[in-house]
Amino acid sequence: MEKGGAAPPIARLMAELTRLPGIGPKTAARLTYHLLRRPKEEAQALAEAIVALKEQTVLCSRCQNLSQADPCPLCSSPERDGGLICVVEEPLDILALERTGRYKGLYHVLHGVLSPLNGVGPDDLKVQELVERLKGGGVREVILATNPNVEGETTALYLHRLLLPLGVRLTRLARGLPMGADLEYADDVTLTQALEGRREF
Amino acid sequence: MEKGGAAPPIARLMAELTRLPGIGPKTAARLTYHLLRRPKEEAQALAEAIVALKEQTVLCSRCQNLSQADPCPLCSSPERDGGLICVVEEPLDILALERTGRYKGLYHVLHGVLSPLNGVGPDDLKVQELVERLKGGGVREVILATNPNVEGETTALYLHRLLLPLGVRLTRLARGLPMGADLEYADDVTLTQALEGRREF
Repeated sequence: MEKGGAAPPIARLMAELTRLPGIGPKTAARLTYHLLRRPKEEAQALAEAIVALKEQTVLCSRCQNLSQADPCPLCSSPERDGGLICVVEEPLDILALERTGRYKGLYHVLHGVLSPLNGVGPDDLKVQELVERLKGGGVREVILATNPNVEGETTALYLHRLLLPLGVRLTRLARGLPMGADLEYADDVTLTQALEGRREF
Repeated sequence: MEKGGAAPPIARLMAELTRLPGIGPKTAARLTYHLLRRPKEEAQALAEAIVALKEQTVLCSRCQNLSQADPCPLCSSPERDGGLICVVEEPLDILALERTGRYKGLYHVLHGVLSPLNGVGPDDLKVQELVERLKGGGVREVILATNPNVEGETTALYLHRLLLPLGVRLTRLARGLPMGADLEYADDVTLTQALEGRREF
């Protein structure tokens, strides 16, 4: 019965949208009614893009990033430095680092972080693939670029211990005050790290 | 070239999502990578729901609400009071009113508000359909339930003037303080309306 509520096709899309992260019932309703107002072609294009997303992407067998080709364009580019690997949690982190335009090495995507509380162990991440990659040789430095929070730090510490015997230089991103920050509102840990990591002016 | 950016199928969905209201590049990226992590069936279900939305909905020829059937279940229900019509701006407004469970009349969806600045005149709204409906007879009261803002008020005033000669009772929703409000922070207009509309305790 649609009486009193939205018509079934409308309720169905709202339910599907609500399953997405950060989309509550009100946002789902707003998006649904937006699509209802737009030309059919626009909704069709969105639906096709969703289907293509799953059908046309694979994991790069080297860096584990999502890509249309294997190996991915980054791994097969002659312009990138194969001796440098930046280990990140998620594919989105690569987009952020690439936007800086300053990193010329390769990547390795873990697809998560260690999280014992959520039952995520090393076998659930692309850790073994990283070890194999380093054993293959040719890598002189690994940047452990997990997020600066408890789980990211735990994962970095674990990888540090695991990779140390392989004789590769292990580094991590600098910690300190972000651009635009206000000392007055900075948290203690950030401020401490900013002090400890201070550099010559 | 996908070098440096996301793979084409990923970039394509992010672009399509960014066209939706309230979805910026970061939300689009988050949603896209969420879908990449979920089973293919889930993405497929979302895509199909989007296509079905456009293919299976029509405007009810009576109340102009979006529905799978024409007339819609509300208009064809014997339990609703056909002598009472609540005029709303958008289909979403009907969902909100139905959630109260207190309204037993029918609806009429304008599909917008008068907005000279945006080039929206009476001919762009379902105004003529409303007039025809009232001329058909049997309606004793029309509740003008447009939103309490400048454009909604303008539209209600326009409809009031237009419908007055038809001899139907014209009402509007009460104005006053919303539940949970704080007198200290209420705006002048709301407070004035709350005073003017005060009722016996």
